Amino acid sequence: MSRIAFIGLGNMGGPMAANLVKAGHAVRVFDLAPAALEAAATAGAKVATSARDTLDGAEFVISALPASRHVEGLYLGEDGILSDVPDGALLIDCSTIAPEVSRKVAAAAQARGLAMIDAPMSGGIAGAAAGTLTFIVGGSSEALERARPVLQNMGKNIFHMGDAGAGQVAKLCNNMALGVIMAATGEAIALGTAQGLDAKALSDMMAVSTGRSWATEVCNPWPGVLENAPASRGYSGGFGNDLMLKDLGLATEAATASGSPVPLGALARNLYAMNSRAGRGGLDFSSVVKLFAADK
Amino acid sequence: MSRIAFIGLGNMGGPMAANLVKAGHAVRVFDLAPAALEAAATAGAKVATSARDTLDGAEFVISALPASRHVEGLYLGEDGILSDVPDGALLIDCSTIAPEVSRKVAAAAQARGLAMIDAPMSGGIAGAAAGTLTFIVGGSSEALERARPVLQNMGKNIFHMGDAGAGQVAKLCNNMALGVIMAATGEAIALGTAQGLDAKALSDMMAVSTGRSWATEVCNPWPGVLENAPASRGYSGGFGNDLMLKDLGLATEAATASGSPVPLGALARNLYAMNSRAGRGGLDFSSVVKLFAADK
Amino acid sequence: MSRIAFIGLGNMGGPMAANLVKAGHAVRVFDLAPAALEAAATAGAKVATSARDTLDGAEFVISALPASRHVEGLYLGEDGILSDVPDGALLIDCSTIAPEVSRKVAAAAQARGLAMIDAPMSGGIAGAAAGTLTFIVGGSSEALERARPVLQNMGKNIFHMGDAGAGQVAKLCNNMALGVIMAATGEAIALGTAQGLDAKALSDMMAVSTGRSWATEVCNPWPGVLENAPASRGYSGGFGNDLMLKDLGLATEAATASGSPVPLGALARNLYAMNSRAGRGGLDFSSVVKLFAADK
Amino acid sequence: MSRIAFIGLGNMGGPMAANLVKAGHAVRVFDLAPAALEAAATAGAKVATSARDTLDGAEFVISALPASRHVEGLYLGEDGILSDVPDGALLIDCSTIAPEVSRKVAAAAQARGLAMIDAPMSGGIAGAAAGTLTFIVGGSSEALERARPVLQNMGKNIFHMGDAGAGQVAKLCNNMALGVIMAATGEAIALGTAQGLDAKALSDMMAVSTGRSWATEVCNPWPGVLENAPASRGYSGGFGNDLMLKDLGLATEAATASGSPVPLGALARNLYAMNSRAGRGGLDFSSVVKLFAADK
Repeated sequence: MSRIAFIGLGNMGGPMAANLVKAGHAVRVFDLAPAALEAAATAGAKVATSARDTLDGAEFVISALPASRHVEGLYLGEDGILSDVPDGALLIDCSTIAPEVSRKVAAAAQARGLAMIDAPMSGGIAGAAAGTLTFIVGGSSEALERARPVLQNMGKNIFHMGDAGAGQVAKLCNNMALGVIMAATGEAIALGTAQGLDAKALSDMMAVSTGRSWATEVCNPWPGVLENAPASRGYSGGFGNDLMLKDLGLATEAATASGSPVPLGALARNLYAMNSRAGRGGLDFSSVVKLFAADK
Repeated sequence: MSRIAFIGLGNMGGPMAANLVKAGHAVRVFDLAPAALEAAATAGAKVATSARDTLDGAEFVISALPASRHVEGLYLGEDGILSDVPDGALLIDCSTIAPEVSRKVAAAAQARGLAMIDAPMSGGIAGAAAGTLTFIVGGSSEALERARPVLQNMGKNIFHMGDAGAGQVAKLCNNMALGVIMAATGEAIALGTAQGLDAKALSDMMAVSTGRSWATEVCNPWPGVLENAPASRGYSGGFGNDLMLKDLGLATEAATASGSPVPLGALARNLYAMNSRAGRGGLDFSSVVKLFAADK
Repeated sequence: MSRIAFIGLGNMGGPMAANLVKAGHAVRVFDLAPAALEAAATAGAKVATSARDTLDGAEFVISALPASRHVEGLYLGEDGILSDVPDGALLIDCSTIAPEVSRKVAAAAQARGLAMIDAPMSGGIAGAAAGTLTFIVGGSSEALERARPVLQNMGKNIFHMGDAGAGQVAKLCNNMALGVIMAATGEAIALGTAQGLDAKALSDMMAVSTGRSWATEVCNPWPGVLENAPASRGYSGGFGNDLMLKDLGLATEAATASGSPVPLGALARNLYAMNSRAGRGGLDFSSVVKLFAADK
Repeated sequence: MSRIAFIGLGNMGGPMAANLVKAGHAVRVFDLAPAALEAAATAGAKVATSARDTLDGAEFVISALPASRHVEGLYLGEDGILSDVPDGALLIDCSTIAPEVSRKVAAAAQARGLAMIDAPMSGGIAGAAAGTLTFIVGGSSEALERARPVLQNMGKNIFHMGDAGAGQVAKLCNNMALGVIMAATGEAIALGTAQGLDAKALSDMMAVSTGRSWATEVCNPWPGVLENAPASRGYSGGFGNDLMLKDLGLATEAATASGSPVPLGALARNLYAMNSRAGRGGLDFSSVVKLFAADK
């Protein structure tokens, strides 16, 4: 049993905190949304009155926030909590943010004598609820080993990718590939059907051929091909277009910072941006296929 | 045992014909290259003096040629053989060519009272030698059923995608997705390493995450990540850059014909074209990663 | 005064034929659309009953047709007119078609002892009516000199780009650049306005800076910036999206044929294809900006 | 005559400061490079010992620095000079940097009671030396009017684009369009020559047609077409590939910030990034054509 401060109870953070409670930890939570706090209270967490108020006696401080500026603000902002984190506590940031911000916050933590890991996750809301998330971790091996038992209460797989920020970089690389692959799969199926093929027959073939991917196996972008995919329920649920757009924005900014050519990743970002401009920002990202076949 | 005419004994056709001989068929072969004919003779095939000379008594006519113009020329050209194919023979074209040419030749065959299927294959030279190719078939179900026993002497999987030309369309869709996925995977790994990650650690994570694909599982484009991948032996062997360039050219031309948007597929074609212009046309197509990381 | 056969009286061909009549030539015309024939008759042309029927005594045969297949069909098809063209007549094809088809028809003409030039034009419907078209010519210098007086009755500028097909190649290169430039200008203005700039102020600056082009000077894609541009009248008139899509399709197919990388041209083709899929195929091609700013 | 503090004496800043001296101003300069200071002294400027040391009695503070971090550091960094700028002085930042950094510094200046404009320039080293630069300005009209006489000592054209940061945004929009146009022009000429055209004949036609631009008129990317273009002297001089890469990085980051689709601009950034990876980062940006035609 550990004392855990948990800040950020969104679609992901809420069920993660609940799983920590279920595992027997003493979890003190904060979020700006009263409804999120209420839900956490119902799940057995102790509700704090502010981010700072979660810290009392905490051995772990976990954050799961929407964007770089929230993470930077939480720890380093004018009213940042870093200075008040108890000595010896381990910081675990599960947000997906810019690697350089992860590195900056981790460096500030280290300067204060605190260890920190970046541990962005994949697996979606379902994975958060089921406790089967994947964590992609940056930071020292020692810090990761300390965090491991707690991470294992929320997820199943843990990948250690390197020093501070490496978790973010790796997640962005994976999601950049995913963003490209989804759109490319949509293009391929749209081309095939425009040429008279049956989308399901084509998809079935591709799913066991060299064109296979998570998009053909799990989340086919064409309605009716996979019963449980968002495409088969009006592109609802799943991973939102604008979340993929955010990740591709972070990936291409990292590429700009290191002078890395990512022509397909950059084009994919712009396809999701056009899909958003066309009014589909809130749908599953596989709705990008509508750019290629307007009637889908 | 069937009497089979086999035209085109290249890297793929040669071992395919040999497998037919091994299966007990009477195979009569032709190719313009004397060395190819010699190898086929050694394998037990009967060497013909011309494409027409293979036809005598043939129940199946199989062609495996480099490009649309060769197939059109063989069957419909000035000296085309279509008129001399024995009544009742089944035509099987295993070349990867433009769908519209497949449709045109099949229509001409039908006008002559002959059934024809397009059966482009995947699996590479190794699959051709081992008899484990995949055939992606367009044509009538009846024709496919007649062809099946012969195809099974050369391959393992058979997908029926629709009418004449559908095999070509489906193969091009698959390979277009593959071409995009390979380059996108290269971009992702190049970005990750430029940001300090280890290529193998990143690849291992991606291979079991949503960014996974044939490129992470079988043919990783980064040297040293997968021992048996072309990248780990100087990009030799494998599927040549200029063959992928050809397939993407066919795919984007099909897209132009049907007004289909394929922005990522089109960009991928141009990446492989640039890779070719940079002198790497003969290397495995995963060498496209050198556009993103010059020292790989 | 010359005897001229004129085949194809569309938006361009109609006014071109009328200008030839006005210049004093004896013009015999044909088109499949009765209304087009009627208009030409009103303008003073003699209406023929078929393409072949225009040829009687013709010194020049001019064609202005929609696509490669029409030109190939007219001259070389089953009922093609090439064999009936009077000896010594000069063939002038003003259609925008695939360079390889231009070369093929020109070669067939030459085999029959006839000279032919490809003379695709630019300048639009307004230029055709005003007789101020630009002709971009492929063929021998001798043939061009013979054609020049006739071309000058329809246009103002004549560029000789090389042998048969060179006119087509050059026009496609120009229009490929134009297609990219228009979309890029749209992107730039959409970005500027999203960042708070005034579209007109931004455009005025760009029009005299290094980002200037025909798109900033004549056909600004943003409504209200240039009073006379299609964007300021609901994207009506101008050069249709699907015509640009056709030209970019021809350009990228030529690029595929010569293994040429044209990444931006290929992406532009796909942007216009997506614009078409979104229902804007009939609007001016500058409406592509709606992909970047949905409310424009 | 005004007292001017000038910080940053690079390829642009050096000649700009010299022109201010020539115009009769009392110019006090600083740069980290001793050689730059020496050259400025020779030109008649007074050399300061630090950025802060330039400020004494200054009525104008002008900065011309390489990147966002330098500008932010100069004014707002740990040893930032903003607090020491004399009351009433006008700040003029001529650097090309991220709009958001311009806005941030301008806001800090305003909080200190100082007016500031962002005035990135175009016209290159030659324009800086000749005093014919173009300034693209963001900030209040009042501030611009105060700055105008000084700007006119260094340049010829002044565009007022809006409030703080608007100068940056507008310059980035212009340069993004330029970056796309240059590469697209290179693609078009490479395609034309691969199809047998003469590069000069093609360029001459395009330069007076709808495909025209600064790239066809002033800086043709093909060697030998325009005698004075960088392409005709081994791509030396001109505007470096990596400077264009920087501007496209800023433009695409601004696009990410406002969710703007810029597919062509983003692809162009990646083309220049690949050109840099191929070892041509220091050449003129028109050398991007080598991606399309390796032997140029």
